[in-house]
This record gives sequence, structure tokens and C-alpha cells, in this order.
Amino acid sequence: MIVTLLTDYGTGDEFAGVCRAVIRRIDPDVEILDVGHGVPRHDVRAGALVMRNVLPYLPIGVHVAIVDPEVGRERRAVAIRCEDGHLLVGPDNGVLSLAWELAGGVDDAVDISRSPHRLEPVSATFHGRDVFAPVAANLAIGAELAEAGERIEAEDLATITLPRANVSDGGVTAHALVIDGFGNIGLNMTHAELAGTGLVLGGRVRIEAQGAERRATFARTFADVAPGEAILYEDAYRTLALAVNRGDAAAELGIARDAEVRLSPE
Amino acid sequence: MIVTLLTDYGTGDEFAGVCRAVIRRIDPDVEILDVGHGVPRHDVRAGALVMRNVLPYLPIGVHVAIVDPEVGRERRAVAIRCEDGHLLVGPDNGVLSLAWELAGGVDDAVDISRSPHRLEPVSATFHGRDVFAPVAANLAIGAELAEAGERIEAEDLATITLPRANVSDGGVTAHALVIDGFGNIGLNMTHAELAGTGLVLGGRVRIEAQGAERRATFARTFADVAPGEAILYEDAYRTLALAVNRGDAAAELGIARDAEVRLSPE
Amino acid sequence: MIVTLLTDYGTGDEFAGVCRAVIRRIDPDVEILDVGHGVPRHDVRAGALVMRNVLPYLPIGVHVAIVDPEVGRERRAVAIRCEDGHLLVGPDNGVLSLAWELAGGVDDAVDISRSPHRLEPVSATFHGRDVFAPVAANLAIGAELAEAGERIEAEDLATITLPRANVSDGGVTAHALVIDGFGNIGLNMTHAELAGTGLVLGGRVRIEAQGAERRATFARTFADVAPGEAILYEDAYRTLALAVNRGDAAAELGIARDAEVRLSPE
Repeated sequence: MIVTLLTDYGTGDEFAGVCRAVIRRIDPDVEILDVGHGVPRHDVRAGALVMRNVLPYLPIGVHVAIVDPEVGRERRAVAIRCEDGHLLVGPDNGVLSLAWELAGGVDDAVDISRSPHRLEPVSATFHGRDVFAPVAANLAIGAELAEAGERIEAEDLATITLPRANVSDGGVTAHALVIDGFGNIGLNMTHAELAGTGLVLGGRVRIEAQGAERRATFARTFADVAPGEAILYEDAYRTLALAVNRGDAAAELGIARDAEVRLSPE
Repeated sequence: MIVTLLTDYGTGDEFAGVCRAVIRRIDPDVEILDVGHGVPRHDVRAGALVMRNVLPYLPIGVHVAIVDPEVGRERRAVAIRCEDGHLLVGPDNGVLSLAWELAGGVDDAVDISRSPHRLEPVSATFHGRDVFAPVAANLAIGAELAEAGERIEAEDLATITLPRANVSDGGVTAHALVIDGFGNIGLNMTHAELAGTGLVLGGRVRIEAQGAERRATFARTFADVAPGEAILYEDAYRTLALAVNRGDAAAELGIARDAEVRLSPE
Repeated sequence: MIVTLLTDYGTGDEFAGVCRAVIRRIDPDVEILDVGHGVPRHDVRAGALVMRNVLPYLPIGVHVAIVDPEVGRERRAVAIRCEDGHLLVGPDNGVLSLAWELAGGVDDAVDISRSPHRLEPVSATFHGRDVFAPVAANLAIGAELAEAGERIEAEDLATITLPRANVSDGGVTAHALVIDGFGNIGLNMTHAELAGTGLVLGGRVRIEAQGAERRATFARTFADVAPGEAILYEDAYRTLALAVNRGDAAAELGIARDAEVRLSPE
């Protein structure tokens, strides 16, 4: 099976490269696919959202997600088999939870903190290299999940709860869930949840957030408006988002991660 | 055949990773080579120049170039077979055009906007995932170009026209075509075009641009001058460029993309 | 054998991608592993330290390290076989030296500046593409080291001398050897060298550097202290380092590369 890697290690250091090397040393024939290493540092929820978004596009395999601010502390390290056959490996802090929910739930899970596959001595700060990569490589070449660690109950796994959007008074109150590298702002709602808000494709939108008011067009794609103008749109993962054509919506609209965002027809 | 990827997606998000995943799901044995994902965002000409520069170093394969400010609008998506056997895939906005000119011209071209290989539903904002990657993967494993879309005429393809350098009055007026990640400034001229300018290797150069005047040495490589000093040199793709040894020429010389740059002997 | 790549090319340009392409054109079956491309530009010592740190995690292979401020000048390009079987390729400026010391020393070395494997014409500024990548690819597919260049004596190879930490007066004077992408500060000492300093795990540490004084806890991992607080810790490569939990130690402690750092019990 393929091993995929998603981390907040960035590309400035060799951390992701060392994880790849550890996998290759265990078996030179394991395929490795970098989903990305640019999750905002320590942002577990952002990592969990990316895992959920990309899972439908990944081959069946062992998917490693590392966003791990508590590395070296008591948080467990886990490997999980989902009902649909995907294997997930990472810290037990919720970064995997949105993915397994999408994958039919947890079929089996083990605590790999003391896995026989780990590299000894395990460092206190780099479990990507010493725990997650070697466990993933061994699972990819056929090691049994049950032998990778101690079985744990699915209900003991850490999860993430996303805030819910709230339709009321001819509008909707949503939240800025995630901001991507271009400044596009992902919201916690889908197109279907707009029922009853009066917001329609092609119409104008009033945006109230962080004490200020802006305007946007509810459009299909960036170039539907002039450069510098804002849009509300359904993003590539079918969630609603805000963007500025050829601009940085987070900066230009002044909306930060977690901000409450009120949308209503102009 | 191999699939290569050049985009302006950056490395901060998972966009390039998802494209790789889509290719792997279509065939786990397709080789993928990342040329790079750091084209300045939306800079079609910069992407076209990189494609032209790197093509001679790429194996025969399917080369995807995505710099696509009009994604989701009327611009076509295309797949092209060049006379020398390379296949090119990307938006029909000129980003591929300098490459096919170098590759002997267009042998055959199809509009892949409604390709049978695309992923449904096609999003309005992420054609890398939904159109370009799956079409490229299918071509790489042997799908016929004619079956990937509707045939179009080569002369209908979008092209890019580069500004020309102009030798006059014992000097040359060039343009800052592209600025790389180190601040080196690529000009629109080759060494051969310096005939008649009086500029000679080892000599001093007067640079006039954006209302100011600087000095450089016409040298072979960065370390031919002291740290902090400027050079005019033939870059690795055999075009002339300006650099500052251990510095950032664009910032230190105050020259922006597209600036007119007058060079003459000091 | 596998080819691994470590450079200071960054990810903003196509330089690393072109090196990968050159290798693939020589043999499509050579495995390529990117250790990373984020070495601070022109920082030969930082590159040498990364090579030393990662070598124990790399498969036996051809390891290319390119940090090359003198590219195109007189410095030699070299390929080296280490006593333990690793092959190293890069500029002869010391960037490989800490790795071969760790790998049992130099078994054989050749000057590849005029290697028969190089791409002609060799550019003055991009030896990664024209010299290092093609030589590495040929070595990876079985070319003899002796045929890759002219034999040179191991004692003529450039080396790097690291500053030494100095225990005195109930403390230790170390140096800030390297600063990673998160601002963590690697010091030139190991845990064993703390003997006689009175510094003990769990204790408090006085840090004197660049004219100012700070405090830290000697801890195992980042989350052992509150967010924003500093730690002295043994990093993943078993050298001592300074970090700030969820922060940037170099910025927040005001310690630059090469600074003298005095550590003593509070």
C-alpha cells in the first residue's frame, strides 16, 4: 500500500525528508505521496479538515497526519483502520477524526506509543521520524494492525467538534474555519445550508465580521468578479468560502481564523 | 510515460498533493515528477518561461502546467502533442505556448474542458484536480489524445508574445521578464543579441531602469564579484540576467517585473 | 541505488525539479528522495550539519548536498565513497565533510568538475543540473567512482571546523550553530558535555547571550512548559537546543546564528 504524508513540518527543514527516508529504509518499494507539509503549525483542526477534504481523492493506503503540539507528552499515538479500508496514523488529538468519520468510522484502533515498529531510542520531539513513519511503513508492507500496538476502544479516541452555522433572521452566522495559503476563507457550511437565507448565486452578499461590514458577490469562481472584488463561492471541497479575485481575502476583508461571519442578502 | 507538474499552487496548501493523489488513483505505476509549484501566482508568462526553460531537461512525457487565473470561466483547457513527442496539458492561456514552440510546434491539440477523463462533478475553482491531473494520467497510461477531448486547430491556441530587446546607440533596451526566488532578474535577450552594444565579458555595465542608474560587472558567475556587487551574466538557460552576489538583485537594484532596463558600457 | 537531494534551492523555483528531471532522463528507474531544499541560502555549515544529522536515517545511496556560494569558480566538485558505503556528491567546500566523518571517513574521492557524466555545456551557475545530478544518477546506476572523475587525496578535501563548547565556572559557553525553520536554536554540545555544569533535567537555566539574560527550563519536550516559555532540551539528533513552546526561540530570545550562548544553573 501507499503511504501518504500530511504534516505541519513545512518545507524549510529536513523533517519531512527524514520521514520519507525512514520509510524507504524499511522497504525501498513502498510508494510515498506527499499530500503536503504546510498545515499551519500546531493547528490540529486545520490538519483535520485537510485530511477530511483530501481523503476521497487518496488511494487506499496508510495516511499519516502529523500536527502534534503535545509531542513527547501524554497524548497517545494511534493507528486506525477505517471501515472503508483506509489506515490512518498520527497523534491522538483529533487530527485524524474528521477523516475516519468520513471513512465510515473506526473498525479497529491501536495505541502505537510503544509500538514494536518504532525506532529506538524514541526522541521526545520528533515522533514523525521515530513512531509515525516506521509504523506506517510496516503497515504498508503488510504488518498486522493488532501487532503495531495495544488495542484501544474507538470511543476513547480524541475527536474534534466543529462549530455549526446558524440560519436566522434572513441570514446565516458562520465561522471562519480555515484560511488557506492564498487567504481564501473556508466557512463551516455547505451550499445546502443556505436554504432560508435568501442568498442566491449571482446575488449580492452583506458580510459582517469583526465589527466591520463588507460586500461580496455570490459567484461560481474567482474571475466572475473584477480583480480586487470579493466573492462568496462553493469551494472545491463543496464547502462555502470567501475569496478576493487575485487578492487575499483574509487580509483584505480583515477576517481571522475563528471569526464569526454573518452573511445576508444585500 | 511520466507526468510532470508545474503550478502556482505553492507548497503551503495540499493542492499539488491532491493532484498527485488523483494521478496515483488512476494508475499507481505512473511516475510523477514535480517540476515545481512556486510560479508566482497567476503569472502566466512566468509559468510559460519556466516550461520553455525546463523542457529540454524533461524526459518525454505528459507535462502539466497550471497557472490559471481564469479557472472556471470560458478559457479552454487543452492537451497538446508536440512535434517532438512531448504532451502538454493545461489551460489555454499561453502557459504552454513557449514550450510547444520549442518542441517543434503543435502536432495535434484537443479541448479537454469536457474530457471523458475528467472527475465529475468538476469544481469551478480546482481544475488541476478535476481536469488536468486525470487527463494527464490517462494520457500517460496510453489513452489516445483524440479521445481525451474535441480536436481543435493549432492556430486557435492562445499564445504569449514576449517583448523584444532593442539594440541602439551603443546599448540595448531590454525588459525584466522574470524574477526568480533569489531576486535574480531574467532579461529578454541572449548573449548573441549583445553584438553592437560594446558590452563585453569582464567589462563594466551601466544599468538604467525605473529612473535610476546602477553599475554592474559583466561576469560569468556570482562569485566573480564581491558580495553585494551586481553582475550581468548568462544564466543557466542561456539568457542574460542581473544578479547581486549573495544578494537580491530585484530588491537591491530596485527593478520590478516588466521594467524597461537599459544596458550600456560604462 | 537511491539518489537523495539536499540543497539551498528553496521551493519557489524549478531548480530542484530540474535536477530530478535530469536524473530521470538518465535512468527512469532511479529512486529520488528529497531530503529537503530549505537549507539557508549559502550557509555551507548549516547544510553540512543537516547532512550529518540525516545520514543515519538514509538508505545506502548517492547523497547529493548542494550549498554552493562559489559555483562556477575554482572550488572543486567532488564525489566521495565513505567507508560505510554511502556515496556523497557536492561542491568541495565542506558541505559533505561532517557526513563522511560520521560515515567512517573517506574511502575514495574524485574531482568531478570535468566528469564525463556532466551535461555539456556546463553552465557557470547551475552545477546542480549540469554536474551533480548527472554524476549522481550515473553512480546510482552502477558507474564506477574512479570513472566519474580524477582521483584526489582525501586529505585535500575541504572540511568544516565546528566551534567547541567550553565548560567553566559552573556553566558552559556554547554557540548557536544552526537555527531551524521554527526558530529552534541548535547548540554545539551534547547532553554528555553538561557534566560539571550543574545543569540538570527539570532545573532552571540562566541564558546569557548578545548582552542580555533570559531564563529557561531544562526539559524533555516543548509542551513541558507553558506556551511562550523557553526550554533547553536534547533535540531529535541528540544535540542540545533552545526552543520556545509554540514560539520562535531565535526571535523571542534574540539569539542569532553564531552567537555565543552562556548557560548556567539559575
